Amino acid sequence: MYVILVYDCGERRVAKMLKLCRQYLNWIQNSVFEGEISEVKLKEMLFKARKIMDEEEDSLIIFKSTDEKWLHKEVIGKEKNELDNLL
Amino acid sequence: MYVILVYDCGERRVAKMLKLCRQYLNWIQNSVFEGEISEVKLKEMLFKARKIMDEEEDSLIIFKSTDEKWLHKEVIGKEKNELDNLL
Repeated sequence: MYVILVYDCGERRVAKMLKLCRQYLNWIQNSVFEGEISEVKLKEMLFKARKIMDEEEDSLIIFKSTDEKWLHKEVIGKEKNELDNLL
Repeated sequence: MYVILVYDCGERRVAKMLKLCRQYLNWIQNSVFEGEISEVKLKEMLFKARKIMDEEEDSLIIFKSTDEKWLHKEVIGKEKNELDNLL
């Protein structure tokens, strides 16, 4: 399964969410991640995410696609994740 | 065509980008938009976006799907765009 994940968290929770998402997906921009992930791993990640989030305040959106081939990605401007590969 | 758009702009350009994207797509979170759009309208929007963006600094990513049915969306926490519908 291919997913795009975007989160919007309170400042105090951002670092934890970033760290968690990076363990499962590829960071592509700000609070946006993408990657191939199994249903089981996704559930595991969401379980951990819910523990970090304040569900009254924060939001996490996941777009799932059964196959990456149904999605075409286009980047305009700077490819922010160049940096990520160096970390 | 169904698209998900995420931008990451310098602070001074955020308001302009937000306004532009809202004219073409539905705001769903922070700097994330989605919606059905024609190829022509998307080109028009990207042409305008490029005028706003500093392509050395900013980034805009578009995920295109030929059909919304290939994408399944899941929201955890607060549905941020509730507010958007009121504006």
